[in-house]
Amino acid sequence: MERRDAKAPRAGTSQRNRLVDVTPIGYLGPEGTFSQAALLLLLAAEEPQPPTQAFGSVTSALEAVRQGEAAAALVPIENSVEGSVPATLDELASGDPLMIAAEISLPVQFNLWVRPGTQLADIKRVTTHPHAQAQCRAWLHDALPDAEVVPAMSTASAAAAVAGEQIFDAAIAAPWAGEPLGLHAAAQDIADNPDATTRFVLVRPHGQPPAPTGADKTTLVLFMREDHPGALLQILTEFSVRGVNLTLIQSRPTRKAMGDYFFTIDCEGHVDDARVGEALAGLHRLCAEVRFLGSYARHDGKTPSIRPGTTNTDFADSTEWLRGIRAR
Amino acid sequence: MERRDAKAPRAGTSQRNRLVDVTPIGYLGPEGTFSQAALLLLLAAEEPQPPTQAFGSVTSALEAVRQGEAAAALVPIENSVEGSVPATLDELASGDPLMIAAEISLPVQFNLWVRPGTQLADIKRVTTHPHAQAQCRAWLHDALPDAEVVPAMSTASAAAAVAGEQIFDAAIAAPWAGEPLGLHAAAQDIADNPDATTRFVLVRPHGQPPAPTGADKTTLVLFMREDHPGALLQILTEFSVRGVNLTLIQSRPTRKAMGDYFFTIDCEGHVDDARVGEALAGLHRLCAEVRFLGSYARHDGKTPSIRPGTTNTDFADSTEWLRGIRAR
Amino acid sequence: MERRDAKAPRAGTSQRNRLVDVTPIGYLGPEGTFSQAALLLLLAAEEPQPPTQAFGSVTSALEAVRQGEAAAALVPIENSVEGSVPATLDELASGDPLMIAAEISLPVQFNLWVRPGTQLADIKRVTTHPHAQAQCRAWLHDALPDAEVVPAMSTASAAAAVAGEQIFDAAIAAPWAGEPLGLHAAAQDIADNPDATTRFVLVRPHGQPPAPTGADKTTLVLFMREDHPGALLQILTEFSVRGVNLTLIQSRPTRKAMGDYFFTIDCEGHVDDARVGEALAGLHRLCAEVRFLGSYARHDGKTPSIRPGTTNTDFADSTEWLRGIRAR
Amino acid sequence: MERRDAKAPRAGTSQRNRLVDVTPIGYLGPEGTFSQAALLLLLAAEEPQPPTQAFGSVTSALEAVRQGEAAAALVPIENSVEGSVPATLDELASGDPLMIAAEISLPVQFNLWVRPGTQLADIKRVTTHPHAQAQCRAWLHDALPDAEVVPAMSTASAAAAVAGEQIFDAAIAAPWAGEPLGLHAAAQDIADNPDATTRFVLVRPHGQPPAPTGADKTTLVLFMREDHPGALLQILTEFSVRGVNLTLIQSRPTRKAMGDYFFTIDCEGHVDDARVGEALAGLHRLCAEVRFLGSYARHDGKTPSIRPGTTNTDFADSTEWLRGIRAR
Repeated sequence: MERRDAKAPRAGTSQRNRLVDVTPIGYLGPEGTFSQAALLLLLAAEEPQPPTQAFGSVTSALEAVRQGEAAAALVPIENSVEGSVPATLDELASGDPLMIAAEISLPVQFNLWVRPGTQLADIKRVTTHPHAQAQCRAWLHDALPDAEVVPAMSTASAAAAVAGEQIFDAAIAAPWAGEPLGLHAAAQDIADNPDATTRFVLVRPHGQPPAPTGADKTTLVLFMREDHPGALLQILTEFSVRGVNLTLIQSRPTRKAMGDYFFTIDCEGHVDDARVGEALAGLHRLCAEVRFLGSYARHDGKTPSIRPGTTNTDFADSTEWLRGIRAR
Repeated sequence: MERRDAKAPRAGTSQRNRLVDVTPIGYLGPEGTFSQAALLLLLAAEEPQPPTQAFGSVTSALEAVRQGEAAAALVPIENSVEGSVPATLDELASGDPLMIAAEISLPVQFNLWVRPGTQLADIKRVTTHPHAQAQCRAWLHDALPDAEVVPAMSTASAAAAVAGEQIFDAAIAAPWAGEPLGLHAAAQDIADNPDATTRFVLVRPHGQPPAPTGADKTTLVLFMREDHPGALLQILTEFSVRGVNLTLIQSRPTRKAMGDYFFTIDCEGHVDDARVGEALAGLHRLCAEVRFLGSYARHDGKTPSIRPGTTNTDFADSTEWLRGIRAR
Repeated sequence: MERRDAKAPRAGTSQRNRLVDVTPIGYLGPEGTFSQAALLLLLAAEEPQPPTQAFGSVTSALEAVRQGEAAAALVPIENSVEGSVPATLDELASGDPLMIAAEISLPVQFNLWVRPGTQLADIKRVTTHPHAQAQCRAWLHDALPDAEVVPAMSTASAAAAVAGEQIFDAAIAAPWAGEPLGLHAAAQDIADNPDATTRFVLVRPHGQPPAPTGADKTTLVLFMREDHPGALLQILTEFSVRGVNLTLIQSRPTRKAMGDYFFTIDCEGHVDDARVGEALAGLHRLCAEVRFLGSYARHDGKTPSIRPGTTNTDFADSTEWLRGIRAR
Repeated sequence: MERRDAKAPRAGTSQRNRLVDVTPIGYLGPEGTFSQAALLLLLAAEEPQPPTQAFGSVTSALEAVRQGEAAAALVPIENSVEGSVPATLDELASGDPLMIAAEISLPVQFNLWVRPGTQLADIKRVTTHPHAQAQCRAWLHDALPDAEVVPAMSTASAAAAVAGEQIFDAAIAAPWAGEPLGLHAAAQDIADNPDATTRFVLVRPHGQPPAPTGADKTTLVLFMREDHPGALLQILTEFSVRGVNLTLIQSRPTRKAMGDYFFTIDCEGHVDDARVGEALAGLHRLCAEVRFLGSYARHDGKTPSIRPGTTNTDFADSTEWLRGIRAR
């Protein structure tokens, strides 16, 4: 996982494009992952298709972006069943600043892939990524109560392991992962929650956010000035007083001491929106550090419900009024 | 009280200045009131002394300012015993906008003035302004339990009435009010609370506030967009989230319906202070109307305690940071 | 005003009842005031009619209640034009505890009463209570721009003065005040705001509040523990977190130092309502002093809009749940 | 991981006790884990020592408690580096109610265990639990930049794998994990953060909490009534208005839809404390569901700083006062 895998070209890289030395777009690999599927979907309309490259871990994918070895990287950030992806939150919160350029959500489904001829009753050892295992927990309990589940680094590598070795009898992996490897689906759509989705973000070097679309989201990382009890209440008030709605709040340890957290927050709107900008400036004064991770179009296209008195026009009017009453 | 007394020159007007047609500064008269004393104190350092003019009511004094017949007017706004002066709050909240240019507080003390020869035991009818009566309530109850108290339009006119007619036996008025009229102090310092003070404001036409001094106060009138239960909580939050402290909050009926109020609010700081300005802009978006009544030096010279993260420098830094992360 | 008028029987006292020694119900007199009218309305359904007695001031009326010389007293507390009645708020906030037993609101209208034969053009001196003057300000300015207005202790005493002496030419008083005195209405319905009302409260010795009616109001006086900036925000939060709506908030000086206030607050609901009781207990812990002035039926009969989760049933359920999870 | 490992006795079980059929206390196994170490520390003073039993997963350990096959189970809940343990939070938030009986924190340190004779330079494949890998990320990057790290189900099983097979060259595991297996420490104390700790909780069937100790913590799971923007602000206000400090807040997906979260919250104090109880009752009214996970002695013995006005005595006084003013 910590191999410097970013430096070596992978099967996912279009060799043609490498010849003209176009920096690739990375993703959490190997080939066959949901991250790759999400990236291809995101790039579907691009012409010509930029080269892509698999990375062995979120860390290595994002480090490649920081080093300029990848133009951007697509990594999972949140799963509707398993929750936030800690590695992604932590990498975005530390090190050289990065920025989220886009988000995309994918429904998540799994098949149980076996070598041809294997029957359900024969399966003793299953391999998959722990998140996939968690999402198929009930199915496994019912269908394979006695099987041992061994963690793999990704669902794609789990499928590859089943195809290549006799150690495992089956792999839980994406619906498209098995056939190219000659595997057979012993069971389909085995995720416990048929509506499970994973949200991925395309991360690029820090820079200017894209222009507002009217249906945007802004992501922040907030570090407290000190660990005082009312700090979170103050943070939420900075948003609410300006009419900015939150869509996600996650606390993560700062790795310094137990009980010392930072917060990753998604809010509705774009940093260029007056209400969002003023809230961010307020947080900048309140917090020890505010890391702006970007404003980008929402995948669901949902426009925010803006409280009366907090539109850009309302802010412009109040600023104009204030200018008028101030001393000159 | 409602005579158009503002139009006629009064004894308090310096005739010398009138010749060169300098617009006078008004005060709540007649001569001998605490308002006059406060004005003279405020003007003590002015050279040459501007002319002054007594007005028969707060309304007529402020109307004279609106009409240009007085350059400014000094009126009482709050008493440490009796509370706010409703006429002043209401006049400032309605009609053409005015502005508070300065404030001054005076200790309030009273003597019982009688005609020479009158003994305490002889006193049956006392006259004074109702506010003065209220501030001497306990003394009257103890010293003159059987005397009738008749309201006068001012403590100064009460003293004049005792000097001029035999209807009243005594007047409660300022320590300096009786001697020029040939009266004798039957009792001195009769206010129940020896520390009572009255705050006066110098009101001028609407315009630009003076530059910040570092120890300023800002006065506002706020009208709600609708009478909803949480409105006041929202108003207070607009201040507190920017670290602006209030020193006064008064509700007054809007004269439309029972239960419909406006608020007069004094806060620490100057409209040019970033935290005050942003709070005012927030209130402008929240309220149906915000009337800015001025920023002016505090009489007590007390500098505000500014919460960390809310200084002008903190605001400038956060604005600069915001500019840096925005799209353009 | 400060005469010990409570001790002497007045014209308003029913002598028949005095014979059987029934303690009278007081009101802010003299006879003919709006307070008397409100009290008679409140007592209309009582059989037999209790005796009533006029008092010369709010202070003397409430003192009579404290001394047991009046069973209760009806006094004005708030006017839709002039705002709160400071004397009433201050008397309720200090001294031996009293309690509001009922409230009643009356539309307020005024006539201009003159001696027969007086024409409008003849009127040079008008007398009335300052509140009445304030409510007829615009009419006076238009109809009698040159008349002097002299304050009287009540509108009823103003009418009596016009009837009895030649000093005043006219009195502003209630529509019923003049005819019994042989006066003639030179003008009718002269209040500037035709919808003006005054709210009166019937005050009795401290005791148990009446049972809830479902449309109740609760009145409190709150003294801060110290004068810190966020105190009012904390007070409002104690109410809002339990879903209790405020209908009135008034600040008044404590008479100790400028800037030291107490708050008179009316909220929806009855102290026996769970949400109101818990809010009051919270205020009791937060404030230096909470003075409970009673829970009583609203004059307008308006039932409160109760936020989901704050009904008595919701509170009972949550208390039961809490009992279940606690150690004992 | 999902094997029904709870049903089979493990090496960790005291056979002697099984004979007399004492229900064992479970832990997240296998033998040699930090969970086992934490449990032994917690049980150090017990006499006789209760039997213990390793379980293959948090889920199976807690399921054993629900089924009565374990009297309690010790599982990790939070790590100062890696954050919350999702499996523990999710298991406690769903299914039959459980309760936290105690907490314990352990410093977390790791050695790199190899077979005798293996040199650092020889190491190509390392195995360990992903959390341990994350905590040694920087050390691995520096010392073994080219090694592949393969996830294991626990640090203990990783050590066992190195001892038993030639597939892996080294294991990252606890300082006590290698020697009993005949392994040698190629490197010691390799965690990036020398102060890293993990917090474990002892979970038992739902019942009454232990009596307050004066230094307690309370754990809750809160489900929102609906996903509205201000819900979290309301939740935090329920705590802050009663002076209850939070020590942890974690959001986790409800597994229904993206953006639908529940919150796991730790607060200072015991459910029997008045301020905590009232806050919990308030949350019960506000939230769709409040799951009480217990009040228990804090491992750090830190007594809460209680805001003036929120002690048990203050609550008792205010309740008594309220009783006195209510109708009877």
